Amino acid sequence: MNYLSNHDDRLLFLPLGGSGEIGMNLNLYAYKGKWVMVDCGMMFADNYSPGVELILPDTGFIEDEKHNLVGLLLTHGHEDHIGALPYLWERFQCDVYATPFTAELVKGKLKEAGLLDEVPLHIVEPRVSFGLGPFEVRYIPLAHSIAEGHGIALKCSKGTIFHTGDWKLDDKPLIGPICPSAELKALGDEGVLALVGDSTNVFNPHESGSEATVRENLIEIVKGLKNRVVITIFASNVARLETMGEIAKATGRHLALVGRSMQRILAAGKETGFLKNLPNLVDEEHIADIPRDKILIACTGCQGEPRAAISRIARNDHKNIHLAAGDTVLFSSKIIPGNELTLGALFNDLASKKINVITEKDAFIHVSGHPGRDELKQMFEWTKPHVVIPVHGEARHLMRHAEFAGEMGIAHRIVPQNGHLINISEDGLSVIDEVPVGRLALDGKELVTLDDGGIAERRRASASGFVTVSVIFDDDNALAAEPALAILGLPRGRDEVFYDLMIEAVESALDRMTDTARGIDRDIEEVCRIAIRRCCRKEVGKNPGVATLITRRRHIDFR
Amino acid sequence: MNYLSNHDDRLLFLPLGGSGEIGMNLNLYAYKGKWVMVDCGMMFADNYSPGVELILPDTGFIEDEKHNLVGLLLTHGHEDHIGALPYLWERFQCDVYATPFTAELVKGKLKEAGLLDEVPLHIVEPRVSFGLGPFEVRYIPLAHSIAEGHGIALKCSKGTIFHTGDWKLDDKPLIGPICPSAELKALGDEGVLALVGDSTNVFNPHESGSEATVRENLIEIVKGLKNRVVITIFASNVARLETMGEIAKATGRHLALVGRSMQRILAAGKETGFLKNLPNLVDEEHIADIPRDKILIACTGCQGEPRAAISRIARNDHKNIHLAAGDTVLFSSKIIPGNELTLGALFNDLASKKINVITEKDAFIHVSGHPGRDELKQMFEWTKPHVVIPVHGEARHLMRHAEFAGEMGIAHRIVPQNGHLINISEDGLSVIDEVPVGRLALDGKELVTLDDGGIAERRRASASGFVTVSVIFDDDNALAAEPALAILGLPRGRDEVFYDLMIEAVESALDRMTDTARGIDRDIEEVCRIAIRRCCRKEVGKNPGVATLITRRRHIDFR
Repeated sequence: MNYLSNHDDRLLFLPLGGSGEIGMNLNLYAYKGKWVMVDCGMMFADNYSPGVELILPDTGFIEDEKHNLVGLLLTHGHEDHIGALPYLWERFQCDVYATPFTAELVKGKLKEAGLLDEVPLHIVEPRVSFGLGPFEVRYIPLAHSIAEGHGIALKCSKGTIFHTGDWKLDDKPLIGPICPSAELKALGDEGVLALVGDSTNVFNPHESGSEATVRENLIEIVKGLKNRVVITIFASNVARLETMGEIAKATGRHLALVGRSMQRILAAGKETGFLKNLPNLVDEEHIADIPRDKILIACTGCQGEPRAAISRIARNDHKNIHLAAGDTVLFSSKIIPGNELTLGALFNDLASKKINVITEKDAFIHVSGHPGRDELKQMFEWTKPHVVIPVHGEARHLMRHAEFAGEMGIAHRIVPQNGHLINISEDGLSVIDEVPVGRLALDGKELVTLDDGGIAERRRASASGFVTVSVIFDDDNALAAEPALAILGLPRGRDEVFYDLMIEAVESALDRMTDTARGIDRDIEEVCRIAIRRCCRKEVGKNPGVATLITRRRHIDFR
Repeated sequence: MNYLSNHDDRLLFLPLGGSGEIGMNLNLYAYKGKWVMVDCGMMFADNYSPGVELILPDTGFIEDEKHNLVGLLLTHGHEDHIGALPYLWERFQCDVYATPFTAELVKGKLKEAGLLDEVPLHIVEPRVSFGLGPFEVRYIPLAHSIAEGHGIALKCSKGTIFHTGDWKLDDKPLIGPICPSAELKALGDEGVLALVGDSTNVFNPHESGSEATVRENLIEIVKGLKNRVVITIFASNVARLETMGEIAKATGRHLALVGRSMQRILAAGKETGFLKNLPNLVDEEHIADIPRDKILIACTGCQGEPRAAISRIARNDHKNIHLAAGDTVLFSSKIIPGNELTLGALFNDLASKKINVITEKDAFIHVSGHPGRDELKQMFEWTKPHVVIPVHGEARHLMRHAEFAGEMGIAHRIVPQNGHLINISEDGLSVIDEVPVGRLALDGKELVTLDDGGIAERRRASASGFVTVSVIFDDDNALAAEPALAILGLPRGRDEVFYDLMIEAVESALDRMTDTARGIDRDIEEVCRIAIRRCCRKEVGKNPGVATLITRRRHIDFR
């Protein structure tokens, strides 16, 4: 059963992820009964889902339509655009398209997942059109905080959609082609029906700034520093990585690149023609041999990830790198919302050791990869879209982006939500259906829905604790032994008086039941739960979850 | 046994809280064998301690010395300076001193705790010296983001300490006396041995700005708004609360004050002579009767607290207040670090309803109550301290404050840590002892140490889940029934196949033990834990905590 007919002449847009969050981007376009997917990203879980590794979009809708899914186009290699692929690809199985550097990163992921030989991965050449189902596809290079950022022009007989991907304008992006204003203007002159684009930085009224300025500033700052210098960066920012080499050259320091993801990007970059001008690198084990004022260490962990290099260095827990008073750590990065306290603790660790900390609040040593409103305005002027659909944002970003498009004179805007099937036409935009969507959580090895009972149970227990009571009944449904309790996470949890009070509470509650009622497991569970909770509230002010394990005489076989 | 002799001529400083965190301020000064406490605050727990209500300093050291503790001086009424009092006072029991408004807030807390008649609470008149043990004490009014902020001059024969409390310089503080520059200069001219002061905003290179500017800006903005206007504020900021009245008057709107803490501050303010000029207030239940463009609602919840007014309004879950598209919410407040995601979600809720959100990022509608470096510099110049001890900050704030004091020519600085007993003398500062310190957590009704096993168990279970297994053995130590499992928070936790695999794993692990070993509870616990964890890691990739409940034939009495 197909959701759309082959004769369906409507041009449709359907986000399954990224319209309502900054992360897990997954967008679908449909025409003539065929679907094209753009990006397949993940996001990291926050404290509301403790123990969850990753969050992924629920692709249930397109799994049912996979026979009509003609391909997945990847705009660039950031995790929020490619990270879900190894977990979800088997569910919808289609051809995948990416430019060389992005493809190199994807290959690494597929290899780890044992899928390298399964996934048909096609290398795309930017600016060269190719057909994909009912669409003519063209990748257009745009600057971003990773090598090979791309917008994608999707042309069909109804018109052209320009899906920006993540982008910014940068006259000196340092890697990749400079901003293709001519190409975008030409696209606009040919006619852009819909611009579907990045909302991340819409609250920045200006422009994001240039990677080249960051390089200049970092060189100037490091020139003035004595002793060891460590710079943390987002490893995937190939231009910034190249900047590390330029700083080393300009300041006469030896460069060491530390951290697994740094090595991965280095390998992918070199494989695809980037990072040719890096100086010779110092191996991690030899850092200690270099004089303090002759070493520059670029490392990972700019979000305070506890196992990443800089956190281990700050804890003095790194095998090869030890910092001391008078050394300097530069965070050439931003704080991703939610990581403030973790990074604050890291800054404190460093400050306590009299290690200087310089962040983007102290100097312009980081630049965003997403467009501020000045850049959005420029993009509107070049491409002259008939309609604008903001994506890649939380509700407030999408709202503000749509509002701004209106202020800039764009005729039609809509604020999408994941699962909204949107008809794009000359007459405007309308939601014509809502399809099932959701979030999947990678919990251990299992992909579960984010509202899975297990995660909710853990969340509840993390605040309130948990008590398991085991009760044994004889053939007359009388308690045959003292109940046994396992107490998880309660104050006074090791206190015998409290333990005995709970036992008493259970025994006397069971005692008040009729023999018949004690024959019914559900009734016993209910009575035990109430008795234990009441006792815990009264004694320690907590309201734990309760599980009751019931064993009856007939279950027991004494030899 | 006294820690200090009555003849001890050293002037000593000992922080038990606030030197290493922004929160739970508790400082001690000692001279001639007597101790004076300054402030007794709490802080809120972060996600690292799920289920914990509050965190308090461990006062164990001064509890042992309570016979030498001559009084507690409260600088002002913020929770991080008075909030621990109702929980800890009984442990050290001393006279308490506060100015009228602060005392009013303290009374409310003591009443709730049933301690109102126990605690000797003395009302202090600012600028009037009084004796307290070996010290002559004088409260000096300073502007802060609450009524009645004070620094405290502590004079003894060794010299004068000026403990700033939380402060800023504000030429137009709107309430309370304007900055007492003459008094501070006079203090400096008499000679200040030590300045012990607020480090919160040391990373602000400028000054914090004036409450009067905030008032002007808010009036201007609200004048331009249509429909309903809601402003969230920190309730304890009495000047800002008065500003709500001024906005209402200037814009012809009726004012409603919503939220419990707002009512509490209103009552305390009126009781002590503040907030006399507020216009007549609209009761919450009558808000709906006022035309949309004639109402101004000031409410609580500026940190996104889920049960506070603005969060309930945003969820459309407030009994009396309903906002709609075109209404505006102003956050006249800052985001306290750690609350970014919660507030982001709140902003999204509002944006989704097309309610305008204006924060301090959009307009200057909030001002900090703590000094930037320009103000610190001014304070140094006025008071000319011989030594500076930064307090009220995390490690990096204290380090920077000490460094800045050095840049400003202060002869001696030290970076204190909670528990460091510091000797203050003309010759400088030195740590002469380290006393036991720590953090207490209010977990339910119990005060436990923050590293309590219960909290750690919950944290572990929140990520990894928890399994309780119940096993019954006969007299030969053979398993007499199928084990029973309670599974908390695992993926596939309701999956019978997974359940059966765990049972099998336990049974076969027990089977491999000798009869003798099965007679030893500890061995059984170990074997069950290993079997269940191994099975969970293999099947679902989780490594849960495990408890084993063991019942033996001899425990069971079958009728």
